[in-house]
Amino acid sequence: LHSGQDEAFVTSFNALHDFEMGQVYSGLPEQLRAVAWRLLDNETLATVFDNIDVDDEDIDDLLQEMPPQKAVQILRNMYADNEVDLLQEMPTRLVATYLSLMPKDEAEDIRKLINYEEQTAGSLMSIEYLAVEADLRVDEVMRLVKQQALEAEAINYVYVLDKQERLVGVISLRDLLTHPDDMLVSEITKDRIISVKAGDDQQDVAQIVADYNFISIPVTDDNDRLLGVITVDDIVDVIDEEAVEDYSGLAAVNVSQTDDTAWHSAIKRIPWLIALLLLGMSTATLISSFDGLVRKASILAVFISLITGTAGNAGTQALALAVRRLAVGSSNSAVKNFLSEILAGFLVGTATGFSVFLIVTFWKHNYQLGLAVGIAMAVAIMVANLAGYLIPELIDKLGMDPAVASGPFITTLSDLTSVLIYFNIAQLFISHFTGA
Amino acid sequence: LHSGQDEAFVTSFNALHDFEMGQVYSGLPEQLRAVAWRLLDNETLATVFDNIDVDDEDIDDLLQEMPPQKAVQILRNMYADNEVDLLQEMPTRLVATYLSLMPKDEAEDIRKLINYEEQTAGSLMSIEYLAVEADLRVDEVMRLVKQQALEAEAINYVYVLDKQERLVGVISLRDLLTHPDDMLVSEITKDRIISVKAGDDQQDVAQIVADYNFISIPVTDDNDRLLGVITVDDIVDVIDEEAVEDYSGLAAVNVSQTDDTAWHSAIKRIPWLIALLLLGMSTATLISSFDGLVRKASILAVFISLITGTAGNAGTQALALAVRRLAVGSSNSAVKNFLSEILAGFLVGTATGFSVFLIVTFWKHNYQLGLAVGIAMAVAIMVANLAGYLIPELIDKLGMDPAVASGPFITTLSDLTSVLIYFNIAQLFISHFTGA
Repeated sequence: LHSGQDEAFVTSFNALHDFEMGQVYSGLPEQLRAVAWRLLDNETLATVFDNIDVDDEDIDDLLQEMPPQKAVQILRNMYADNEVDLLQEMPTRLVATYLSLMPKDEAEDIRKLINYEEQTAGSLMSIEYLAVEADLRVDEVMRLVKQQALEAEAINYVYVLDKQERLVGVISLRDLLTHPDDMLVSEITKDRIISVKAGDDQQDVAQIVADYNFISIPVTDDNDRLLGVITVDDIVDVIDEEAVEDYSGLAAVNVSQTDDTAWHSAIKRIPWLIALLLLGMSTATLISSFDGLVRKASILAVFISLITGTAGNAGTQALALAVRRLAVGSSNSAVKNFLSEILAGFLVGTATGFSVFLIVTFWKHNYQLGLAVGIAMAVAIMVANLAGYLIPELIDKLGMDPAVASGPFITTLSDLTSVLIYFNIAQLFISHFTGA
Repeated sequence: LHSGQDEAFVTSFNALHDFEMGQVYSGLPEQLRAVAWRLLDNETLATVFDNIDVDDEDIDDLLQEMPPQKAVQILRNMYADNEVDLLQEMPTRLVATYLSLMPKDEAEDIRKLINYEEQTAGSLMSIEYLAVEADLRVDEVMRLVKQQALEAEAINYVYVLDKQERLVGVISLRDLLTHPDDMLVSEITKDRIISVKAGDDQQDVAQIVADYNFISIPVTDDNDRLLGVITVDDIVDVIDEEAVEDYSGLAAVNVSQTDDTAWHSAIKRIPWLIALLLLGMSTATLISSFDGLVRKASILAVFISLITGTAGNAGTQALALAVRRLAVGSSNSAVKNFLSEILAGFLVGTATGFSVFLIVTFWKHNYQLGLAVGIAMAVAIMVANLAGYLIPELIDKLGMDPAVASGPFITTLSDLTSVLIYFNIAQLFISHFTGA
C-alpha cells in the first residue's frame, strides 16, 4: 500500500473474512484509508461497511471521508438493514443528500425502513430475500436462487408469494436440493408459516428464532404482505444487546462499553450514584427523626445495616426473577404469579427472620431484642420482596422496559421501608430490652 | 388419535414445524404418547427429540417410555450433538444399554462426544457436516451436497479436507450456487479458516460466531483434523445461557427457571440470604464494638445506611463492569485497566463524597460532621469500587466463572469496610461535632 503494491493489497484484502475486512479497514490510519477506498471496488467496500459494528466505531465518519457519489455507491451495495443502521447514525441533512443521489424507488425503500421504530422487527429486517410464485418446478426455482444468491442476505429459505405479494409458503433450500428437478415446488412448500409483524418487539422475534432454531424469519405487514427477512446474525446481536441491557439495569450502570477511559467510566456511574444518594437521604432523615429512640437504646444502631442489607438482597433477588419472567414470558396467570411471589416472600422472610432472632438472642442474651430484630427483619424482607416483584411489573404495564428498575434502586428504596419497619417495631419492644 | 384416525394424526403432525413437534409431543398425556410413537416413523421422532429442550422437560423419561430398541433407532436418527445432550441426562447404566445396541463405530463416536467437558466447543458440536476433497469440480461437489443434505445439520458450508482429514479450506454453498458447474472448487475455496478447538470455552466460540456472523463454525483437534461443526442455533442457546448465568450471579439468585412454585423459589433464595446474613453479622458486630461512640454521638447512626448503601451501589457498578469486561475481553493491558479503575473510583468517590459533604453541612449546620461523613463516604466508595473490580478478577484468575461474585456479596462485604471506615473517621472528628 505504501510502495505502490496496489494489486497485492487488493488481493490480500479480498482473502480476508468479511468481519476481518471491517476490522482492518476501520483500523487503517486515515491517509491509508484514502488510498484503500480508491483501490477497492464498491462491492468489497459494501462488505467492509456491512461488517463494522455501528455502535463500536465512528462508522459514519469513515463514509464521510469519501465524496457523496462514492459513498452512495457503497450504501447501495450494502444489505438494506445495515445501510439503514448506518444512515440512522448520520445527521439528517447528510442522509437527505445520500438519498437524493439514489434512484427514486431505492431511496423510497430505504426511507420506509428508516421510519421503523428502533427495537422492532421492521428495524432489523433486510429486504434482500428470495421470493417466487407457487406454480414453479424445483429446477426453475433453483435457477432463480442461483441468480439471486449473491444479493440475498439469507439463502436458506425461498418465500412463496401470491399475486398480492402475500406470503403463502416457505421452501427450504435443503428441500430444493434433495427433491427431483421436475417436481412442483408446491409439494415441498410449508404453508404453516411462522412470521412476525414489522411492529413486533425485537425481543419477541429473538425468542421465536431461538425456539424454532431458524436461520431467518419473514416479516410481514398487517395484510400478510412480505416486507423483509430478519437473519439469525441480527438475532444474535439482539439477544446480546437485551442481555447487556438487563444486566446494566440490575447494576445501575451501562456496561455496554467496557474499555472506557476512567473519566468516561466515572461520568457513567456518578449520575446514578448521586440520584440514589438523594433517595438514600430520605432514609437518613427518617433515622434522624428516631434520634430519641437511638439515644435511649444505642444497641438499635447495631442492626440497621443488617436489616437494610438483608432486605435489600431479598429485594434484588425478587427483582431479578421478575425482570427475567417478564422477558421470557410466563405460562402462569398474573394472579398466580403474584400469589406465588407473596408466598415465596413470606417463606424467605420467615426463615431469615427466625435465623436472625436466634442469632441475636444468643449473642446479646436478650430474646426481646432478638424478637424485635427478627420480626423487623421478616417484615422488611417481605416488603422488599414485594417491591422487587411489583416495581418491574408496574414499569412493564406502563410500556417501559422493566430492566430500568435497577437493583441499587430497589435496595435504596428498601432501606427506607426497612428502617421505618425496624424503628417502629423496636419502639413497641423498647420497654422490654432497654434494661439490657 | 382417540378414534383411530391414525393417518390424519400423522399427516397433521408432519405439517408442524420441528419445534412445534417437540412441544406437541411432550405435551401429550402419556397414554396418547404411547400411541403416537407407534404411529410416527423414526426420522420424525428423531426430529421431535431434536427439538425438545434438554433442560426444560423430562426428555429422558419420554425416551424411556419406549423399548430400548425403538429408543436407539430414534437416537441414531438424531443429530449427534442433541443425542449426546440427551444421553448425558440419563443414568450411566441406561446409556451403556443404548450404546450396546448401536453399531460399534457409531457407539464409539458418541462415546467420544460424551467425554467432552461441558461448556466446551466439543460438547456443542455435531458430527453431521459436509466434507469433500479439494480436487473436485463445482457440479461434483453439488452432487455430494445433494446426497448429504438430509443428514447434515448445516448445509451452508462444505469443508475441504486433505488426505490426513485435516481441514484445509471452506466452500460456501452460496459460491457453489453462483459459479459454473465445470469450475474447480479450489478456485472458490477460502483457505483462511476460522475454526475452534474442541477444548475451547463455549463463550469464546460464541463470541467468534457472533462477530463473524457465521451460520456454523468448524471444530478441530490439535492436529487441525476436523472433528465436527457447531451451528448458530446452539450458539444462540449459549449466549442466552451465559447471559442468564451473569444475571443470576449479579442478583445472587438463579433466574433460569421463572415459573417455579413459591416453595422452590424460596428454597433457591434462602441459602444465599442466610449466607449473606452471616457475613452481615460481622458488620453488626463491628458496629456493636463502636457502641461507646454511638452513645456519645447518636447522630452517627443517621448516616450508617447512607454510607453503606452508596458504597454498596458503587461496588455493584464496578463489579458489573469488571464481570462484563472479563466476559467480552479487553483490548487494554491488565495494568491499564487496574489504574483506570482506581482513577474512576477516585473520581466517583470524590464527586459523591463532596455532594454528601454539602448536603450534610447544610442540613445539620455542622461542617465538621459534613466533613466526617463526606470523607468517610469518599473512602468507602473507593474501597468498595476496588473490591468490586478486584474480586471478579481474582475469581477469574483462579479459573472460576467471575459471575459467581454476586452483587449482594459485594454490597454485604462493602457494608463491613464502609462501617469500619466511617466510625474510624468519625472518631477523629468527634471532638469537633459532639457539641452540636
